[in-house]
Amino acid sequence: MGQLDASRIRENLRELSREPHLSSTPRDEELVQLLLQRWRDAESGLDSAETFEYEVLLSLPSQEQPNSVTIVDPTGNILFSCRRSEENVTGEQEGPDVVPPYAAYAPPGTPQGLLVYANQGSEEDFEELQNRGIRLEGTIALTRYGGVGRGAKAVNAAKHGVAGVLVYTDPSDINDGQSSPSQTFPYSWGLPPSGVERGSYLEYFGDPLTPYLPANPSSFRLDPANASGFPPIPAQPIGFEDAKVLLCNLQGASAPETWQGALGCEYRLGPGFRSDGNFSADSQVNVSVHNRLELRNSSNVLGIIRGAVEPDRYVLYGNHRDSWVHGAVDPSSGTAVLLEVTRALGTLLKKGTWRPRRSVIFGSWGAEEFGLIGSTEFTEEFFSKLQERTVAYINVDISVFANVSLRAQGTPPIQSVVFTAAKQIPAPGRSSLSIYDNWIQYSNRSSPVYGLVPSLGTLGAGSDYAPFIHFLGISSMDLAYTYDRSKTSARIYPTYHTAFDTFGYVDNFVDPGFSSHQAVSRVVGNVLLRLSDSLFLPLNVSDYSETLRSFLQAAQQDLGALLEQHSISLGPLVAAVDKFEGAAAALDERISELQKGTPDPLQVRMLNDQLMLLERSFLNSRAFPEERYYSHVLWAPRTGSVATFPGLANACSAAMNTAPGSAAWAEVQRQLSIVVAAVEAAAATLRPVADL
Amino acid sequence: MGQLDASRIRENLRELSREPHLSSTPRDEELVQLLLQRWRDAESGLDSAETFEYEVLLSLPSQEQPNSVTIVDPTGNILFSCRRSEENVTGEQEGPDVVPPYAAYAPPGTPQGLLVYANQGSEEDFEELQNRGIRLEGTIALTRYGGVGRGAKAVNAAKHGVAGVLVYTDPSDINDGQSSPSQTFPYSWGLPPSGVERGSYLEYFGDPLTPYLPANPSSFRLDPANASGFPPIPAQPIGFEDAKVLLCNLQGASAPETWQGALGCEYRLGPGFRSDGNFSADSQVNVSVHNRLELRNSSNVLGIIRGAVEPDRYVLYGNHRDSWVHGAVDPSSGTAVLLEVTRALGTLLKKGTWRPRRSVIFGSWGAEEFGLIGSTEFTEEFFSKLQERTVAYINVDISVFANVSLRAQGTPPIQSVVFTAAKQIPAPGRSSLSIYDNWIQYSNRSSPVYGLVPSLGTLGAGSDYAPFIHFLGISSMDLAYTYDRSKTSARIYPTYHTAFDTFGYVDNFVDPGFSSHQAVSRVVGNVLLRLSDSLFLPLNVSDYSETLRSFLQAAQQDLGALLEQHSISLGPLVAAVDKFEGAAAALDERISELQKGTPDPLQVRMLNDQLMLLERSFLNSRAFPEERYYSHVLWAPRTGSVATFPGLANACSAAMNTAPGSAAWAEVQRQLSIVVAAVEAAAATLRPVADL
Repeated sequence: MGQLDASRIRENLRELSREPHLSSTPRDEELVQLLLQRWRDAESGLDSAETFEYEVLLSLPSQEQPNSVTIVDPTGNILFSCRRSEENVTGEQEGPDVVPPYAAYAPPGTPQGLLVYANQGSEEDFEELQNRGIRLEGTIALTRYGGVGRGAKAVNAAKHGVAGVLVYTDPSDINDGQSSPSQTFPYSWGLPPSGVERGSYLEYFGDPLTPYLPANPSSFRLDPANASGFPPIPAQPIGFEDAKVLLCNLQGASAPETWQGALGCEYRLGPGFRSDGNFSADSQVNVSVHNRLELRNSSNVLGIIRGAVEPDRYVLYGNHRDSWVHGAVDPSSGTAVLLEVTRALGTLLKKGTWRPRRSVIFGSWGAEEFGLIGSTEFTEEFFSKLQERTVAYINVDISVFANVSLRAQGTPPIQSVVFTAAKQIPAPGRSSLSIYDNWIQYSNRSSPVYGLVPSLGTLGAGSDYAPFIHFLGISSMDLAYTYDRSKTSARIYPTYHTAFDTFGYVDNFVDPGFSSHQAVSRVVGNVLLRLSDSLFLPLNVSDYSETLRSFLQAAQQDLGALLEQHSISLGPLVAAVDKFEGAAAALDERISELQKGTPDPLQVRMLNDQLMLLERSFLNSRAFPEERYYSHVLWAPRTGSVATFPGLANACSAAMNTAPGSAAWAEVQRQLSIVVAAVEAAAATLRPVADL
Repeated sequence: MGQLDASRIRENLRELSREPHLSSTPRDEELVQLLLQRWRDAESGLDSAETFEYEVLLSLPSQEQPNSVTIVDPTGNILFSCRRSEENVTGEQEGPDVVPPYAAYAPPGTPQGLLVYANQGSEEDFEELQNRGIRLEGTIALTRYGGVGRGAKAVNAAKHGVAGVLVYTDPSDINDGQSSPSQTFPYSWGLPPSGVERGSYLEYFGDPLTPYLPANPSSFRLDPANASGFPPIPAQPIGFEDAKVLLCNLQGASAPETWQGALGCEYRLGPGFRSDGNFSADSQVNVSVHNRLELRNSSNVLGIIRGAVEPDRYVLYGNHRDSWVHGAVDPSSGTAVLLEVTRALGTLLKKGTWRPRRSVIFGSWGAEEFGLIGSTEFTEEFFSKLQERTVAYINVDISVFANVSLRAQGTPPIQSVVFTAAKQIPAPGRSSLSIYDNWIQYSNRSSPVYGLVPSLGTLGAGSDYAPFIHFLGISSMDLAYTYDRSKTSARIYPTYHTAFDTFGYVDNFVDPGFSSHQAVSRVVGNVLLRLSDSLFLPLNVSDYSETLRSFLQAAQQDLGALLEQHSISLGPLVAAVDKFEGAAAALDERISELQKGTPDPLQVRMLNDQLMLLERSFLNSRAFPEERYYSHVLWAPRTGSVATFPGLANACSAAMNTAPGSAAWAEVQRQLSIVVAAVEAAAATLRPVADL
């Protein structure tokens, strides 16, 4: 771990973020070659590296017809135009390779109408407007990032007849309220007034035209007209400098307290502008979107270190390569770490001093920004063998959001290996503390088993771990360094997905000295070595007992009374969780016993297979037919706020106001049976192997 | 193998078939206890045995209101009644436990109408009647067994407005034309005139109320009104003695030549009776069906021999236990063999002289006759661990159809192990020949790889192997002794599913001396030992190359021109098959090399995992959404007669007469991509394990 060098990571980052490298552009392809060259290096490369190219559907703004947002009077005169690009504050915000701000996959169209303000564009936000008697039909809704996903803002808006959606980042959500140029980048890490968050507005992940099939050139493709998940109406993101002009001139009632922000005026709801403002009351907003869908080639780069003893067991470690603009933080901070970890391991490998027990596969994924496309296509192409052979997937996307504390997300079996690694490595800038001791100060929880421990977050679908955990059922984790949440309420680092996410931004503000990058590389390296080299896999399956027990208690508390009213018993689920706990505890004892002696290789392999395959037993490919790729019955999307079994909770929400005997109540029972069967199957996987 | 004793098998059969043992009846439960007692025997039992009880939906005739088929005149007088039970020719055809003939899952109802003759009740048969101008609306259709499945006759009939369906067994299809009492049982093995084939008319297999979930008492159950797969109209089977009265009195045009049979009259189409026959021309046929759906408890019995070295690798061997009546052939001939094999192995085990390398799990399945219910629920309950750990499934349902030759069905990897076993065992009654040499005389094919070899049949869904191969993707086989097809054209052994399938029938006609039963037990025992004890699994994966190549050639010949017209290239499939062949050949070489040396245990395990898991790589749970449980892209049901990729062939049939650009042509492309992805995944499974 001493080999992992901050200055090399810094140099990696400088090179990776030198130019914008949007997916499938020439610079993206240059970075593919850079990865290949590093991974094939004679002195520090891997055993092999190759590219896997897919033909995927991207959405790009038209170069000939730029998207625009304008205020027009009834005769068509343009009274105001929003910026079409960010201000060139460091000389890096202009140029042919800086993609203008746009909402990827938003359909083309030129809606025009009165402006309304719709807060975060959630279902509840639009209902609030509707309840206040605001006519939404044909309007343009101005929304702010946060709360719900990008695409959901357009989906919710369209349900209420809104014709077009604008999305901006409020300074209260990203800059702790600061909004003047002198308070923001390049004078601080704050988002400049012209900064715009780009992003994918796609509802699903993976290539939109080839669900469940690898997007090889010959693969069957849906007609885009039959593909689902695109936003239903045009959408365009803008900066808060422009949003201020729009929002601070609105007429109508004051927006609710929680909808107010930091633009320096009272937010009103509209529709339309107030007559004492900058624009006439009958002025409208025109949103012109000219995005185009294009089939483009996007590559993954895969590098392999062959295992010495169990080459058919894989530890996967990956990150995406494509950015929106320079992407110094997102994703190059992760790729810079990836390259340093592979350099250090490759050097040992080429010297002949080390080879791991299991194979390690490194992935540089393409087209993540458009919807985790490269990683998803990889899981589709190698579905069977990855599912059969993969021990765990490590994801490091943005490696450093901020330089304060480790943040880890993952499924329960990886908690212990991350903790062990974090205890061995000094915290950057606080060398008397371990990363673990530092972490527990910033984010912790009380575990009924261990007492106070750092909080391990759960995995949503925010990065490339999604297809691995949700589709393949592979124990996964996402690692990064992050903020002190008591010091900032920023949704994410301020220049996220903007042209201000540059090397200088990282070097000056995010992680000067790169010690947090180095810390993450050490944690990842430590975890990776433990997973690939330990005789017994360091996956603590009995940590699932705590999760299942807490999900069960939450279900009993939150849903128990409702279920009882409908004569649905949680008894079988209680029995299944009990069985799981018993089997996991007995397995732990068996591991301890084996570790005392000198177990034969097959005994170890059999036990490791149980540990590896436990996560798979929670999959049910028929549990959530509407949720593409989601098969894991514990971690599928959950609409409510209670941490419990998602299928059961969602079905209860849907059934709550329906009559007994409805299809929705049948679905509650089906979901309960699905989770009972999954927990029973998980227990069966852990029982002594010759028992049923 | 010398321990496997014909006289013990005979005694097993006598006991098993002593009483009718319809699923979930007291005698079925007694046989559960018999199995448990044998498998727990201190001197010849297994390591453990237990029951797994499910609550499943069966269909039973009403005891209070017997089903009836009558001919009535316009005033309602009954002119003729079909028998309600078979003739008591051996004293075993009567009694409270002999279930009267019925069509399980046919809905209750009392349709009445003019009779038509509809041959085998296929779609084409009903179209033929329609094309001849015969009005089918409201008629009763008399059909004969064969051609299409039982349920399909009712489904096809209902599409044409038919109100009720009768099904009989024509003597030409079962008795080589013989039909008189003196020519049939108990004077020969022929079906007596009163014999009626019972059977399930369900379209799917598995418990109809709990698809994809184990039918535990607490499991979610569909409302039977929402369950699918039941026949849409009442149906009832009758004997040919009664069918003759109905059919030989029909009026109307002569039926086509191929529709004629052996009832001794010219078959006419109807509708209605001819005025010069036994009934007035305006007489109608009344079909009164009073079947009831009932939730009943049905048990599987599972017995286990724990593996000494790899207890987490399972060889499964099973048969169902439930019969329609005495079920001496079906299924007790198989259960008698199962008990003899477990006795012989159990004796070695208890003596301490033998324990297999891998675990062996023996299954006695319940409720097979109603639709493979017990085995399907087993695969649902233990889906994950069975899929991860099972080497192969051996099914022996009816062990002896006739005493002439071995018959084996299975997937390509099991061909070689069955051949090897068959070469080691003398053929019954022809001790100078091996079972293999005898087999090749009766059923053979020319293999491009091996030259002339016995024909291995493919697996449909006729017995409990179906959920193992189609749902779990486990290499499976079905073994039996069977007919000389040059001597009989009988669809199946004549007393199949009738009250004449008794011990005396087997003892006198099917296999006097039980040498064929013994032969099957030796083949099974030999195969089972090879699978459970060999260091390298005896699954020859490169035999899939021959199958894929022949499927590909058939697709090129049969579909190539059509696909080309629609600009669909088989090129990617050709490339995938080439890749598979190369990977399989290279793996064979690697096995040969390893066998020369002294491979370490993990090398063997890794290689065996590739062999075991190859079959799984052909699964795609989303390939055939309409075909419950079918996920294997090579062996799913195929509508056409050409042996090729079923999804592709079926999609082509459906698309053939649609316009270019139709949804049906998109489905052809999707199916092609699915099979390409599966063959690519299969090749990936066989490649060196650290390669992608």
